[in-house]
Amino acid sequence: MLTFESDYTEGALEQILERLVSTNRQQVSGYGADPFTTSAAEKIKEACGVSEAQVSFLAGGTQTNQLVIDTFLQPWEGVVAATTGHVSIHEAGAIEYTGHKVLNIPQKDGKVCAQDIERFVSDFFADDTHEHMVHPGMVYITHPTEYGTLYTRGELRSIYEVCRRYDLPLFLDGARLGYGLAAADLQDPSTPEEQRYPDLTFITRHTDVFYIGGTKVGALIGEAIVFTHSNRPSHFLTQVKQHGALLAKGRLVGISFDTLFTDDLYRKAGRHALEMAQQLRDLLHRKSIPFFLETPTNQQFVILENGAMKELSQKVGFGFWEKYDDTHTVVRFATSWATTPQMLLELEACL
Amino acid sequence: MLTFESDYTEGALEQILERLVSTNRQQVSGYGADPFTTSAAEKIKEACGVSEAQVSFLAGGTQTNQLVIDTFLQPWEGVVAATTGHVSIHEAGAIEYTGHKVLNIPQKDGKVCAQDIERFVSDFFADDTHEHMVHPGMVYITHPTEYGTLYTRGELRSIYEVCRRYDLPLFLDGARLGYGLAAADLQDPSTPEEQRYPDLTFITRHTDVFYIGGTKVGALIGEAIVFTHSNRPSHFLTQVKQHGALLAKGRLVGISFDTLFTDDLYRKAGRHALEMAQQLRDLLHRKSIPFFLETPTNQQFVILENGAMKELSQKVGFGFWEKYDDTHTVVRFATSWATTPQMLLELEACL
Amino acid sequence: MLTFESDYTEGALEQILERLVSTNRQQVSGYGADPFTTSAAEKIKEACGVSEAQVSFLAGGTQTNQLVIDTFLQPWEGVVAATTGHVSIHEAGAIEYTGHKVLNIPQKDGKVCAQDIERFVSDFFADDTHEHMVHPGMVYITHPTEYGTLYTRGELRSIYEVCRRYDLPLFLDGARLGYGLAAADLQDPSTPEEQRYPDLTFITRHTDVFYIGGTKVGALIGEAIVFTHSNRPSHFLTQVKQHGALLAKGRLVGISFDTLFTDDLYRKAGRHALEMAQQLRDLLHRKSIPFFLETPTNQQFVILENGAMKELSQKVGFGFWEKYDDTHTVVRFATSWATTPQMLLELEACL
Amino acid sequence: MLTFESDYTEGALEQILERLVSTNRQQVSGYGADPFTTSAAEKIKEACGVSEAQVSFLAGGTQTNQLVIDTFLQPWEGVVAATTGHVSIHEAGAIEYTGHKVLNIPQKDGKVCAQDIERFVSDFFADDTHEHMVHPGMVYITHPTEYGTLYTRGELRSIYEVCRRYDLPLFLDGARLGYGLAAADLQDPSTPEEQRYPDLTFITRHTDVFYIGGTKVGALIGEAIVFTHSNRPSHFLTQVKQHGALLAKGRLVGISFDTLFTDDLYRKAGRHALEMAQQLRDLLHRKSIPFFLETPTNQQFVILENGAMKELSQKVGFGFWEKYDDTHTVVRFATSWATTPQMLLELEACL
Repeated sequence: MLTFESDYTEGALEQILERLVSTNRQQVSGYGADPFTTSAAEKIKEACGVSEAQVSFLAGGTQTNQLVIDTFLQPWEGVVAATTGHVSIHEAGAIEYTGHKVLNIPQKDGKVCAQDIERFVSDFFADDTHEHMVHPGMVYITHPTEYGTLYTRGELRSIYEVCRRYDLPLFLDGARLGYGLAAADLQDPSTPEEQRYPDLTFITRHTDVFYIGGTKVGALIGEAIVFTHSNRPSHFLTQVKQHGALLAKGRLVGISFDTLFTDDLYRKAGRHALEMAQQLRDLLHRKSIPFFLETPTNQQFVILENGAMKELSQKVGFGFWEKYDDTHTVVRFATSWATTPQMLLELEACL
Repeated sequence: MLTFESDYTEGALEQILERLVSTNRQQVSGYGADPFTTSAAEKIKEACGVSEAQVSFLAGGTQTNQLVIDTFLQPWEGVVAATTGHVSIHEAGAIEYTGHKVLNIPQKDGKVCAQDIERFVSDFFADDTHEHMVHPGMVYITHPTEYGTLYTRGELRSIYEVCRRYDLPLFLDGARLGYGLAAADLQDPSTPEEQRYPDLTFITRHTDVFYIGGTKVGALIGEAIVFTHSNRPSHFLTQVKQHGALLAKGRLVGISFDTLFTDDLYRKAGRHALEMAQQLRDLLHRKSIPFFLETPTNQQFVILENGAMKELSQKVGFGFWEKYDDTHTVVRFATSWATTPQMLLELEACL
Repeated sequence: MLTFESDYTEGALEQILERLVSTNRQQVSGYGADPFTTSAAEKIKEACGVSEAQVSFLAGGTQTNQLVIDTFLQPWEGVVAATTGHVSIHEAGAIEYTGHKVLNIPQKDGKVCAQDIERFVSDFFADDTHEHMVHPGMVYITHPTEYGTLYTRGELRSIYEVCRRYDLPLFLDGARLGYGLAAADLQDPSTPEEQRYPDLTFITRHTDVFYIGGTKVGALIGEAIVFTHSNRPSHFLTQVKQHGALLAKGRLVGISFDTLFTDDLYRKAGRHALEMAQQLRDLLHRKSIPFFLETPTNQQFVILENGAMKELSQKVGFGFWEKYDDTHTVVRFATSWATTPQMLLELEACL
Repeated sequence: MLTFESDYTEGALEQILERLVSTNRQQVSGYGADPFTTSAAEKIKEACGVSEAQVSFLAGGTQTNQLVIDTFLQPWEGVVAATTGHVSIHEAGAIEYTGHKVLNIPQKDGKVCAQDIERFVSDFFADDTHEHMVHPGMVYITHPTEYGTLYTRGELRSIYEVCRRYDLPLFLDGARLGYGLAAADLQDPSTPEEQRYPDLTFITRHTDVFYIGGTKVGALIGEAIVFTHSNRPSHFLTQVKQHGALLAKGRLVGISFDTLFTDDLYRKAGRHALEMAQQLRDLLHRKSIPFFLETPTNQQFVILENGAMKELSQKVGFGFWEKYDDTHTVVRFATSWATTPQMLLELEACL
């Protein structure tokens, strides 16, 4: 059955599969010490525009969040995150498993703001008993957020300024970064700078560490972590191994990202998904389906009456998001690099 | 440069890549809830010959050891393992990271014996202060071992009997299991039962949990865990997620194992490697290179004079194992599913 | 300088010191295997009125919370607690250190209610993705709360019913339990059953585990954990040792509790503190100092203008609680087993 | 029944109890911010002879080992210790609970040597795959050891030199340090420097961190950690709290150590125990009981025939140490600050 339930329902961009096939019998060293991985890292650094950046690769998003946060934090520190942040709710306690608390602050449409971060941190240090509390040691944001929304350059700049002032590393979870970058590409060029969405070089200059999501943007597997200023944690490979996260055949992720960062493939994949998302939004508007949240990225949230929702779910897949009221539910439709115009035609026929 | 340094220097069996290509645009659910994964699990259960077995898939060996051991042990328990066991030395403390001690017992050529396990456990309970000590809660063995050796059916049966007597789950790390199974296939059929190497059904009936290694036996990634008697730990998926080990695109590993367990591909891949290993042993004998350990599987250990070793390392890759004496070193040559007769000819030309 | 900053500013009830002196040269076994500890456990079980209760002793409150929660929870579970709960804020992440998340729910004056617990748990199980979330595995409440308030019998009964329905152990943190029990003693006997405060037997029958605080109610050190229905976690002593919490001279805590539960000393100590608290409240009213929260236990919260507060702090100690508004602060005055009428006279002279 | 099973069978030196009584109603701040604790720290620093030393107090030995090791090590590091070290065997996995491996090296009579430490560390760095292994991050020794033996100044100096060379902090577990210091006091003054036992100032200058045991040397509770060169881990109090180890009434331990370091009480207590140990050794020799290990401290190990051992155990307590052979057992007799000549007379009557 056709589905729009998520952006990881298909395999991978064909170019990645072809590259896996063509390189298959080349003998290379394991654990990421292969030329594909080296090449991928170089291409990503170049795309980020910062020569002192460092790049490491891991298999998936929760694993990346867990490793980055655990290796950046001191034992007595926790990570500041939105109450709706992926690390706060949907990672089965992967952060707490490593001994660290997630310190929640308010959000709006999945986004936190500089003022709330500052208030939290300054309240912490004002507290007489803060030596008996978990110290804030990092700020975590998602971009795009879990609600498909994006930070503007102005918002990200303000957040980074607060982080710098309090010496808190800023970590941007880019599990769907490709869709966020495509939104920047497609934005009206006359948009004032502070309202523009950040591109890769802006993100590199306004975070301490972030990752470029592969799994949800056209790879079979893999996330690329960028440490923006030679700040990769000491003995990172050993810590990756200790977490059980080191792949013997690092070539798999290396080849994937080397391909994604050749001929602008990553950018094109993201842009394709957003063009499909535009058609999806148009379609939903045409059908007069009310939006819960209309976003600039590949995830769209609409409100369905429960009976209609149940009926529709027999014909097409989508994601149940949250209860709206007693008779309605918020559901998510996601496009991706793999969505085709034909799929949207089929969806239209179901609505 | 040609290398025999390990069995994970190439990509994957072509059949796996072809299957990834042919299924690529099929939309399936994430996190292992896809039909490929279901089919792979069914085929493996059938091959194991035990209908109440349960099968789960993970990405790599250290991750699998970490998760199986951590989810089987109670908080106050440790895992009994050979001093040379992979979990004891070469996993960067992945077991201790989860809070559990590795309780070391002696080994010979990588193997432990039933008597030493029994001695350790009975000494533990005889100790007046054992409530102040880490309780043995599981026994871990590797098959093939880190030295390429194999347990016989008699040895495995004895070990499992001790484990049953003390209610200790027995966990067999089969990162290279395909090569061990092939050795059983190739063994002289007149070998007395107790000296025979175990096949998959014997292993299933004489362990509590084991895994079938994919990464080192022809897959790009993936290990298949077999819980032999409906003893998968409670909420295993949640615990996998909590460890950062749940793959969004479970199809990658599902397809790999579904292919490996179609048309006897896993068995054939193992057998091929052992045929190449036989040729390798013959070649080394012909060249009068002294063996440190001649094994029935794909890893062969020889002794090289340090000067000769250095010279050879300019022409062909191999693994440095350990110092033999002041002027000699033990090195490892490994064949695999990907080794070709041509490679062995090239090696011969180097020796 | 005279202080009312907390209830742990003095040493111990003199009866405890006398008992330490009189037993000092008796040779006894270590690690809690001494006759004083056995006797103390028996006396507490008798006071609780439940013969299948089990009693263990630890040194302090955070340690007790950490051990009880960690040993009751499964690895994939977290503990449900008020946002203001001690484990949520003021224990430096001691719960997360053991790998478990604190799952916060709303509170009023430090208390949670049965409906909010039920809503949280039923929402959890209604969530499609709850296998990717931390499972609620225990409910934690404080009594008296951090705000000096108390649950009524009706409230505690309702909470326990929800816990039973969802098979969630209920843990009551009684760091200041003596003051809560004294409030029950002193309550108007004509109060309807559901509005009455719980006594020790009621608490024992309406929780799964709780502790009787010693440190804040007259002992130098020590908390007594009551497992109400033979539900002490397996190998508890080993787990206490593993946490670094096992005292070699268990006699210290054993003697303290054996003394506290002889001749109603614990009850008398609590009652004395509440009589002093009554005088304190009268005094604060006489001085027309506005209350932020007037409580039935030993902690009273008043609002001081910042200038007046600063001046007063030169003459007498008290606890800074939280900002009230830009010009006022909430401060805490605590009485205890050690407060004397003379101290209150001195305080009156300062106000 | 009279017992020599350990050195923690009695309460505390009477001077400590008297001090607890005389200070009991003084109001002081909690969590170690009291004047007794401050005074104790100053006296210990003075006794150590190093003004930049820092002193912290904890409740017990396992807790201290766990906290010092966990706060000194980086996440990817383990602690090097003798196979017989207390942290290796008898602390229920308290070190592994914090995520760190204990890296075992050989020992003789409980002592490790500089050469074995150097061999272990240099082998580690020589290993091609050491990035896949647990890094040595600290060296742990006990003094006196679990066998009552002592390092000489020469031995300790050599160990510290190796540690300095490899930048490994050296941690000396002094749970019974008072008995080791007394042995130095009582040693023949003409002993060559390198064969002399270290005194407190020598230990301070030849370790990075050590602790002065209170629990086994006359206190009811408490260990004093000395960080020898302003190297107390960052946010140590917060980390102590996070481990559940922070005492609300820090005064208890503060008063104990302030008393122990007044009028040479700690030294006198240790010396008394050794004088009793000398009488014990004489007595055992007179009775022709064969020694397993005759030590310069308060623990003596003898060999008893199993039948005789059983009979004796009806009359006097002692510690079962280990099996000697099929018909004999090694048992331990310990004297302490509390042993009296009368007890030895009674023991003599039993032998």
